[in-house]
Amino acid sequence: MRFVHETLPQRVVFASGASPEAVAEEVSLLGARRAMLIASGRAAALADPIAARLPVVLRHEEVVMHVPVEVAGRARTAAAAAEADVVVTVGGGSATGLGKAVAMMTGLPVIAVPTTYAGSEATNVWGLTEGGTKTTGVDDKVLPRSIVYDAGLLTSLPADMSVASGLNALAHCVDSMWGPRADPVDRALAGEGVRALAAGLPVVAADSGAIEGIEQTLYGAYLAAVAFASAGSGLHHKICHVLGGMFDLPHAQTHAVVLPHVLAFNAPSAPEAERRIAAAFGAATAVGGLAALRAEVGAPRALKDYGMPEEGIAKAVAPIMAALPAGNPTLVTEENLTALLRAAWEGERR
Amino acid sequence: MRFVHETLPQRVVFASGASPEAVAEEVSLLGARRAMLIASGRAAALADPIAARLPVVLRHEEVVMHVPVEVAGRARTAAAAAEADVVVTVGGGSATGLGKAVAMMTGLPVIAVPTTYAGSEATNVWGLTEGGTKTTGVDDKVLPRSIVYDAGLLTSLPADMSVASGLNALAHCVDSMWGPRADPVDRALAGEGVRALAAGLPVVAADSGAIEGIEQTLYGAYLAAVAFASAGSGLHHKICHVLGGMFDLPHAQTHAVVLPHVLAFNAPSAPEAERRIAAAFGAATAVGGLAALRAEVGAPRALKDYGMPEEGIAKAVAPIMAALPAGNPTLVTEENLTALLRAAWEGERR
Repeated sequence: MRFVHETLPQRVVFASGASPEAVAEEVSLLGARRAMLIASGRAAALADPIAARLPVVLRHEEVVMHVPVEVAGRARTAAAAAEADVVVTVGGGSATGLGKAVAMMTGLPVIAVPTTYAGSEATNVWGLTEGGTKTTGVDDKVLPRSIVYDAGLLTSLPADMSVASGLNALAHCVDSMWGPRADPVDRALAGEGVRALAAGLPVVAADSGAIEGIEQTLYGAYLAAVAFASAGSGLHHKICHVLGGMFDLPHAQTHAVVLPHVLAFNAPSAPEAERRIAAAFGAATAVGGLAALRAEVGAPRALKDYGMPEEGIAKAVAPIMAALPAGNPTLVTEENLTALLRAAWEGERR
Repeated sequence: MRFVHETLPQRVVFASGASPEAVAEEVSLLGARRAMLIASGRAAALADPIAARLPVVLRHEEVVMHVPVEVAGRARTAAAAAEADVVVTVGGGSATGLGKAVAMMTGLPVIAVPTTYAGSEATNVWGLTEGGTKTTGVDDKVLPRSIVYDAGLLTSLPADMSVASGLNALAHCVDSMWGPRADPVDRALAGEGVRALAAGLPVVAADSGAIEGIEQTLYGAYLAAVAFASAGSGLHHKICHVLGGMFDLPHAQTHAVVLPHVLAFNAPSAPEAERRIAAAFGAATAVGGLAALRAEVGAPRALKDYGMPEEGIAKAVAPIMAALPAGNPTLVTEENLTALLRAAWEGERR
């Protein structure tokens, strides 16, 4: 048992149906009086009741996926012009990401109100895109001071998007078991995340407006992000990153398809992770637990369904081999990696 | 699901046999150059190799239980005179507590190197004693910036003290399931703490020098403290606090004796906690799991063995009723509390 675990400071508030009061309370605890509210036009209806309770000096609607630097620059200029002393984001990963970019450049505190299961609100990772190239980095300044989770803001998220996003969070948990910096605390949080996601996702898949299912899924996605930010990208995320970039595959679906194959690949060499994941699923084995959940929620099954060409399998092997994370439980070879990719491409049952 | 969870910032380093290098690294990360080393004379041999690697400007040996204010005042004055820019503590709860007192008065960062399972190093709680009265409070300034756990520093702790101290940590976990501010994150960390303590304590009980057992027990005690500081004192700690104060009972033994009775009292009304604790023990029931662990490690059994008079049962009821924590799962009445105390006094099997 030899590790360094760094716990980052953050307040997490679960307040279903009460985000306006909860966000106002967090702003007040910071002693802030001039709020910049970041929410896209699509999120306006969700943000309005929150805005109504805040000393808003600026509403910023320009939210763009992957946070282009020009967009971040304009947000920063607007924040300075309005003399904002706090940034409140209402939205998914793009809104949170823009808030983080403003925080990085200005040092302003962020309060994040997520409307998806992306998890960015619980990490100190920022991302910016310039000329089509995404740069990411780590800076404790960008970690939101508070998160307010309000399940009521996710009731209109369609079930299939909830499932894909929730399985993406599950992939954070699974990869946190063997990421390059994974430690026992990460594994414990990730195990609790699996438990919560396995409890919440079937409920959300059956009824996308079910508050209790959304709460469990949000809670699981939060833990997934905390664990993943600490453990770092493991084999699963390296594979998905390469495939997504090479073949322009949809993010959440790619994760959902690849996950069972990575789990089956690593589980035999990672008995502690296997036990933890199995226990969290309440199943005899980790692989069996994930298969049962995937069947229950109707998870995406094959990369070929999302536009990956068959010859892509051979093309992806070298870049993945070049990006392998340190300390993966099962030794990765060109041969077993090719087999893994083929199984994910075909949609072989796991 | 409605809660606020506050995560406090801290680095935790597990480095068995390598605390001198690890502490030097933590001091260096803080950019500190003038270390005040707090270690009692008894802990000098453990502290020497750590001191050898540090820019020590002051070694402070006056460490007294419960941190009398005069002792804290002298430590603060010495720190100022030596122009220390970091405090390193090597020792149990008293050494850590003195470091925290200095931090509270000076704002200096603390690096804690624990030599017991007390857990104070992982909390923002301080304590000071004046004229026989102990005052405690919460201040984020006193939370050590880093903890360095080195199992090699605990190999000379006698087995019976390790067991009592480890069961005290177990009580932190159990009470964290239903303390007044207990939230799902606390319960998850406490569950992992129970798992680690149940794995480590039997090993330490059988061989007090077994590094792997000490590591698991330290890890469990760390999680126990994190969870307990967040959840607050539940029924178990309120009972032990009253009994300890009225009858001058030994701290760790009192906790060890009372715990199974509080668990049996609350478990039927706290099904989620019951499931979590049972699963962490790998047992069919929480009560059964604790009983098996207690039998294996030879836990203390009866309050009458530690000097509590039989008539003390009746006397303790009113002050405990007056101190009941909010939201205890089972409704506490004079009648069922009397029965609980009698069972703990007699040493009834649970």
